[in-house]
Amino acid sequence: MEPALQKHYEWRGKYEISLRAPLENAQDLALAYTPGVALSCLEIEKDPEKSFELTRRWNTVAVITDGTAVLGLGDIGPLAAMPVMEGKAALFKKFGDVDAIPICIKSKVVDVIVETIALLEDNFGGINLEDISAPRCFEIEQKLIDRLNIPVFHDDQHGTAIVTLAAVTNALRLTGRPPAETRIVVNGAGAAGIAIIRLLQKAGYVDIIACGRDGAIYKGKDGLLESHVELAKTTNPRNEKGSLADAMKNADIFIGVSGPSCVTQDMVRSMNKKSIVLAMANPIPEIMPDLAKEAGAYIVGTGRSDFPNQVNNSSAFPGLFRGVLDARARVITDEMKLAAAKAIAEYITDAELTPEYIMPDALNRDVANAVAKAVYDCSKN
Amino acid sequence: MEPALQKHYEWRGKYEISLRAPLENAQDLALAYTPGVALSCLEIEKDPEKSFELTRRWNTVAVITDGTAVLGLGDIGPLAAMPVMEGKAALFKKFGDVDAIPICIKSKVVDVIVETIALLEDNFGGINLEDISAPRCFEIEQKLIDRLNIPVFHDDQHGTAIVTLAAVTNALRLTGRPPAETRIVVNGAGAAGIAIIRLLQKAGYVDIIACGRDGAIYKGKDGLLESHVELAKTTNPRNEKGSLADAMKNADIFIGVSGPSCVTQDMVRSMNKKSIVLAMANPIPEIMPDLAKEAGAYIVGTGRSDFPNQVNNSSAFPGLFRGVLDARARVITDEMKLAAAKAIAEYITDAELTPEYIMPDALNRDVANAVAKAVYDCSKN
Repeated sequence: MEPALQKHYEWRGKYEISLRAPLENAQDLALAYTPGVALSCLEIEKDPEKSFELTRRWNTVAVITDGTAVLGLGDIGPLAAMPVMEGKAALFKKFGDVDAIPICIKSKVVDVIVETIALLEDNFGGINLEDISAPRCFEIEQKLIDRLNIPVFHDDQHGTAIVTLAAVTNALRLTGRPPAETRIVVNGAGAAGIAIIRLLQKAGYVDIIACGRDGAIYKGKDGLLESHVELAKTTNPRNEKGSLADAMKNADIFIGVSGPSCVTQDMVRSMNKKSIVLAMANPIPEIMPDLAKEAGAYIVGTGRSDFPNQVNNSSAFPGLFRGVLDARARVITDEMKLAAAKAIAEYITDAELTPEYIMPDALNRDVANAVAKAVYDCSKN
Repeated sequence: MEPALQKHYEWRGKYEISLRAPLENAQDLALAYTPGVALSCLEIEKDPEKSFELTRRWNTVAVITDGTAVLGLGDIGPLAAMPVMEGKAALFKKFGDVDAIPICIKSKVVDVIVETIALLEDNFGGINLEDISAPRCFEIEQKLIDRLNIPVFHDDQHGTAIVTLAAVTNALRLTGRPPAETRIVVNGAGAAGIAIIRLLQKAGYVDIIACGRDGAIYKGKDGLLESHVELAKTTNPRNEKGSLADAMKNADIFIGVSGPSCVTQDMVRSMNKKSIVLAMANPIPEIMPDLAKEAGAYIVGTGRSDFPNQVNNSSAFPGLFRGVLDARARVITDEMKLAAAKAIAEYITDAELTPEYIMPDALNRDVANAVAKAVYDCSKN
């Protein structure tokens, strides 16, 4: 049996409940349960905000999926998605000290999912959406943001966008090119790709071409998805038509959130000098790092932990939610996402920064703390 | 500030998440999260039953309320109900080693609540309903039992019934009267009262009078609730009409799940010799134990921990669910409830049994273990 599967059989679940209140004797019970608990109930009934002081709500985030886009496995359903949600919950606790509750919902209907989550709002201090297929994820997230009084965050979109922006930021610290003059190609115009482009734009990047399965997305292209029509309005300033290979010519940065091995060495060779390749498809990148390097890429990052420059969401979401919860922020703004990306990037000093070290270790708790502080400060200003 | 409230402010939540899988280095992450976790997802996709082996589902129970009947506080809403649900979750862990997730649902509509819980089924190995008002609780429980493939248990009904039957059983061990010849009056014909009567009937008790706010419930009485029409069909064999005081004349056992101080000493005096008074209204019983004793009651029990013979659900639910989860039972049968009551009663040996000691300590982990074993064995036979 594969070691990872073996381990899952041994663990029988990657998290459990532990007590914060003692229950050793009748007096403990009278304080934590009846009759003493009634006082806390009445306090919250009088002032709903007290739910953030008298219960675990202040530190609790729901990790919610419908199981429609799990890892690279696709629509495997809510039941089969649980091992991933449990893993996410474990990461939340380990790196953000956030109590995350995995919630897999047995429906694929947008409004049913939204309604279900809305009915559960009182239990949580925040909602982390996970592995929900596009374009449904956009609608679910927006409807929840409009409706709930707690922050909602789709990690596959915005977590990925934050760590990508951090990687881009540090790559440009090395190449010295200003954002406004940087040509970027993003391959993969789904949830992650679109969120990456939106956040890059907020950070001052203006020359971005998004590519879908049939090449560059441009204004007026036939058969565009609704989300791509929107995208075309603010991207591809020269309205370039053509394949991914065409788009990559003279680009400074390639960002891949697409699929395995779709980038050739020739494509990398056609990029500008000091080219930056972030090939984040998992587990097999758009181009393997050694091939990209050989073809002249100056900086290469992937989503994998076994190559340098791992661009991984776990650098972002635990610290982000730590800061959001501590600040009792009601929404997660673009400014908070930018602050999180900046904190990740700046964790690496000028002296430390090299083409092989543009991203801090995803398992470094200090990074999460830095992100938390930046997000907290941003929220309070 | 009251100590119980003070403690709740200090705890800031009575439970938290802890990790069962290590996340110390990249190798740990590769096993517990990507890419290793994908193997577990695929196993569950192939065989849904594997969700009980590869995730925490096998040990996880949802503690679900809509906040409509919280303690004696009434309809305080889902948000204000959370301190109680957290306390329940803590009891589940402490005495049953069950991971309980509090879920407060922001709706009072029966079908919405049922639908919401059904959509969450994949996350849990069982459902513990809590503090839901009657008669809605009957409908919600029955619809969920019909629909879900995991056990559903409304603790206010069946937990109370189990511990009451245990107390009655041990009281009769002392008085020697056979169940079939025992006259019982149950005051309070809501969720708990009805469930108590149903379980007593299963255990062989035939002479039971249920009393509501306006006295004995009997066949043909004007203005009966639907649930009371049903109750009248199998209770009150002599079709007695009259007040609670009338019903209590010559009764052997009084069971109160009603309100404070509604039983007088004269009523107790009118009962049979060796009378048994279980006055379980909380926090103020139907009659205080010293008054009942003074009026001639042979055995007195309450719901409180500061008097002898505490008849408390916490003797039942943690062990019951432990046994149910270990057996992977799909329903909680009457036989399992009877087995649980028997295990609680028999925990006290003949030599130990006295009128002041008919119920084991609610905080005794051994009782939960005995209940778990009895329920497990019952389920497997």
